[in-house]
Amino acid sequence: MDGYFGRYLDVDLSDEIIEEYETPEKWIRNYLGGRGTGIRILLEEMDGDEDPLGPNNIMIFATGPLQGTGVPGAGRHVVVSKSPKTESVSDSYAGGFFAHELANSGYDGVILRGMADSPVYLVIDENGPGLEDAEELWGEETADVDGKLKARHDGGRVATIGIAGENLVKFSCIINDKNRAAGRPGFGAVMGSKKLKAVLVKGFENKPIYNEEKLRKTQKEFVENLKESSSIEWGKYGTASGLGALNERGILPTKNFQKGVFDKHEKIEGETLFNEIITERDNCTGCPVRCKRVVRTEFAGEEVEEKYGGPEYETLSAFGSLCMNSDLTSIALANQKCNKYGLDTISTGNTIAFLMEASEKNLLEEDIKWGDSEKIVELVDEIAHREGLGKTVAEGIVEFAEEIEADFAVTSKGQEIPMHDPRGKKGLGISYAISPRGGTHMEGFHDDFREESPEIGVYSLSDRFSWQGKPYATKRFEDFQSFLNSCIFCAFTTNYAGENYNGHLIRRMVNATTGMNIGPGQMLDIGERNFNLLRIHSRREGYTRSNDKLPKRLREALPKGPSSDSPIPKDKMQEAIDEYYKLRGWEAKGPTSDTLRSLGMGEVIESIE
Amino acid sequence: MDGYFGRYLDVDLSDEIIEEYETPEKWIRNYLGGRGTGIRILLEEMDGDEDPLGPNNIMIFATGPLQGTGVPGAGRHVVVSKSPKTESVSDSYAGGFFAHELANSGYDGVILRGMADSPVYLVIDENGPGLEDAEELWGEETADVDGKLKARHDGGRVATIGIAGENLVKFSCIINDKNRAAGRPGFGAVMGSKKLKAVLVKGFENKPIYNEEKLRKTQKEFVENLKESSSIEWGKYGTASGLGALNERGILPTKNFQKGVFDKHEKIEGETLFNEIITERDNCTGCPVRCKRVVRTEFAGEEVEEKYGGPEYETLSAFGSLCMNSDLTSIALANQKCNKYGLDTISTGNTIAFLMEASEKNLLEEDIKWGDSEKIVELVDEIAHREGLGKTVAEGIVEFAEEIEADFAVTSKGQEIPMHDPRGKKGLGISYAISPRGGTHMEGFHDDFREESPEIGVYSLSDRFSWQGKPYATKRFEDFQSFLNSCIFCAFTTNYAGENYNGHLIRRMVNATTGMNIGPGQMLDIGERNFNLLRIHSRREGYTRSNDKLPKRLREALPKGPSSDSPIPKDKMQEAIDEYYKLRGWEAKGPTSDTLRSLGMGEVIESIE
Repeated sequence: MDGYFGRYLDVDLSDEIIEEYETPEKWIRNYLGGRGTGIRILLEEMDGDEDPLGPNNIMIFATGPLQGTGVPGAGRHVVVSKSPKTESVSDSYAGGFFAHELANSGYDGVILRGMADSPVYLVIDENGPGLEDAEELWGEETADVDGKLKARHDGGRVATIGIAGENLVKFSCIINDKNRAAGRPGFGAVMGSKKLKAVLVKGFENKPIYNEEKLRKTQKEFVENLKESSSIEWGKYGTASGLGALNERGILPTKNFQKGVFDKHEKIEGETLFNEIITERDNCTGCPVRCKRVVRTEFAGEEVEEKYGGPEYETLSAFGSLCMNSDLTSIALANQKCNKYGLDTISTGNTIAFLMEASEKNLLEEDIKWGDSEKIVELVDEIAHREGLGKTVAEGIVEFAEEIEADFAVTSKGQEIPMHDPRGKKGLGISYAISPRGGTHMEGFHDDFREESPEIGVYSLSDRFSWQGKPYATKRFEDFQSFLNSCIFCAFTTNYAGENYNGHLIRRMVNATTGMNIGPGQMLDIGERNFNLLRIHSRREGYTRSNDKLPKRLREALPKGPSSDSPIPKDKMQEAIDEYYKLRGWEAKGPTSDTLRSLGMGEVIESIE
Repeated sequence: MDGYFGRYLDVDLSDEIIEEYETPEKWIRNYLGGRGTGIRILLEEMDGDEDPLGPNNIMIFATGPLQGTGVPGAGRHVVVSKSPKTESVSDSYAGGFFAHELANSGYDGVILRGMADSPVYLVIDENGPGLEDAEELWGEETADVDGKLKARHDGGRVATIGIAGENLVKFSCIINDKNRAAGRPGFGAVMGSKKLKAVLVKGFENKPIYNEEKLRKTQKEFVENLKESSSIEWGKYGTASGLGALNERGILPTKNFQKGVFDKHEKIEGETLFNEIITERDNCTGCPVRCKRVVRTEFAGEEVEEKYGGPEYETLSAFGSLCMNSDLTSIALANQKCNKYGLDTISTGNTIAFLMEASEKNLLEEDIKWGDSEKIVELVDEIAHREGLGKTVAEGIVEFAEEIEADFAVTSKGQEIPMHDPRGKKGLGISYAISPRGGTHMEGFHDDFREESPEIGVYSLSDRFSWQGKPYATKRFEDFQSFLNSCIFCAFTTNYAGENYNGHLIRRMVNATTGMNIGPGQMLDIGERNFNLLRIHSRREGYTRSNDKLPKRLREALPKGPSSDSPIPKDKMQEAIDEYYKLRGWEAKGPTSDTLRSLGMGEVIESIE
């Protein structure tokens, strides 16, 4: 089928065997690609009781139908594997330029099995795929690895771990192109456990495109639509522009989610960032939005360099408002450290905020004050090196919170909640609770931004505090975003609603690339199938509905601001989850065989039997 | 592809050439079958300027994926052709047993082109297909044709026209199995114009089924679901049970739509019918609901026999309340006459009600009083024979109304409005106005019966009088019903909403039969594609948005009852149509090429260029 090579590179690191893995066309038709096909492969190749950091866990780098074509929004790849944080299969996305190379490599992705004896890296280039010794790269910073490998192999794009992944920090990530991160589920640790330091890939084989003319025509329409919408203009302040907006709504996570308003928000928001420390704006393959921040500054005598990019919204909030820290340069430095060590900024910031609250409540020996900028950057170092407090919290805050008897770890299924307070976005709260990926903002209904979306089937909206219709809207938006994630398409080039909605154009680009005929409904079917595929994995791992809950902190009302007096009571959430499960056709354990049949995915029923 | 033979029988009546017509798999995947493939064939084979009663019109009898399998709800076939009433391509459905034979004949349907010199009939049986002389059948009543042909060919099932079709009455229909009618668009006249009296078909080749075991398993679930719902119980009084219910809501069409309440409704409603004249209940292939009425009675000395079945809801209302007629036996006789002559009961009743009002208003020489039962049955005779007033009104009431300067013909695009008053069902009003088929109740949103339908994407319902969200709900339900119509599935075995919603089971039966993988969204995509296909035909015929309107009568408020004071003002309807067109992606002329591409039907764009 066009749009795909129909094969993955299949690398066994234990035995150093490199083969090809063919993906049945049926999988591609049902699950499309990207995370869909990736997670389908994991369902086939894993049993569900693997140690995430053991040799039987499998990690996949994957591309979808649009990667490699150069269309805006598709400069992204996905990594799927079993997460050491959630102990179930999860997915993680990163922008940049790595995807474009991988999608033109002759393979739709790379399957990584087993565990090397000593550090290696994988090369896919004009000489074919091969494993190389990485002993001397072990311990190196991500940008150094990137530079050295490119020099050694005369170009290509690199995804690598830093010392955090080597040290198996549970929230370590994989850095590609020096400053893009596949964060959240801790895949840096998975890569570290496999002793795979890096992957370098060069695109030397053109991806097959079904109808190039149609693709380029639609791409043009897509870009015109982007220009008419607020997207291009938005790129100036980028994701960071969200900080002021969320503060204004009273849902900017502040003081470890004790507050939704940060008094000093102006010091760390998008415009300030732009005016004070940004030196340029960067993009991903083919994208005119250019939302990527590049900064130069210094903090406490340490330089912050352009090569590590700059902090995005989530990072600004996690190291900023969440820790009551208003020193922008310290956040830039914390961001740099995370990128060079390969640490997830959301989880790291969330962990530090947790420690600050624990210290305030005298649950720690250490004295960690709210807003102590220097301490924040120190803690990033400690976590990556597993030194000091880092020794313990590198395992994640869930167990540590139990140990110190703290009830304010803000996590869901072991995953730290990202920087959108669900008390003022009830629909997103449902996603945080039910997502098989744990707390994620990448597949949910952000109640406060939406106009009507007739194609998505959400046409009557209640306000962001209301529960009315939210399970339904949440499911529908999850399915749509799940489709986008199967296309590995960027949320910031997607208009979800209103006049400039562009789901149809994304779909038409997929159709032009693949020769498929996906209509508006089938688009959601593909999303829903993939959402269920993920839930089948968590079902197999023993997750049930009883795991779908929010942390205690979010059941408390926010004390002031426009989202105060709107907590998420247990019973309200349970009612919403009742309705949500009914809409999804899930029983306590997850999708039933009937539901799978109704979605046209009877072929995976045996996985739940 | 399983579920289909992939070929139609292609009969040229002018040259008596019988060939096979292969349907590309892409058509089946995109449009499924039944009316979908049928209308797609017409798009290929016709240009759009044909005289509906001339040799260049093409008529198709078609089956879909579920016919021939024996599953309940699928004992139906569809006829598609250009309608002499709407002057555009339309579709007409009939229950019974004919579909089952046709679907097992080795062909998915029959294409009929040209025009025979003298009356013929078509036989498809174990000796292969052939045309036979029908000179001596011309002028015969439908049940007699049925009996004679079965005797001559040792069984089979027969679809035939009566004298109304022979006489090219514009609202004549095709009768199969003696008492089932493919009514509304006047296809009896099309068949008459082709001098094709009848089609007899025997199923002698098994329809290919992808996974018989899966099909039967799902069929069982489907029947269990039916039993849990009200459907089976509903079958006792059948469609006729709607009469009391609609009267109670004040939307029982009465006195040519001047009223919504009929004082004597009890005399003609379902329970009365059941208790007084029903001798048995009949079914269609495989169906446990058994909603088909069979009556025996007499009126004015004329016997009403079981072979012609009995009146359904639409018939009871059209010859009853609409004409202010409370004599049940006269309605039974009018129904018998319509079946034996091959006349559409809705249009015939509507025409007579129009004449009654015209007479009352002194626009006619004839004296035709409201509720004159004997006159009603006389008029049925006159229309079928084109005698007396029948000479003129057999051409339809639109032109006749102009001639006598009457502004109370209740039609849309030349099609008489069926027996659901849209003043108390605003969503249905939109369908009446915009449908390319003219006034139809078979593809619209019946506002007053619905609970939430999450799969259909209609989750927030406003009341039946409100316009709020109605364009959206209308579009969504039209698409769902359009899918059902492509499956040629019965509305009375379908639960559209609530606990016993069964769209997923219907879809799963299609998947089991075809090997396709249709999910909830693709189900609606198929419906939407077929809805657009019909609109492409009407676009080609020159229809534009300006033709989308309701007759003057419906702009007047109903005088009393629970739906009074709720007229359909022009401006409100235009606002709703604005929104509706936007949701469908239509410009004034109909679907744009962009819309077609977004639906995955780029392959038909040349039809609108």
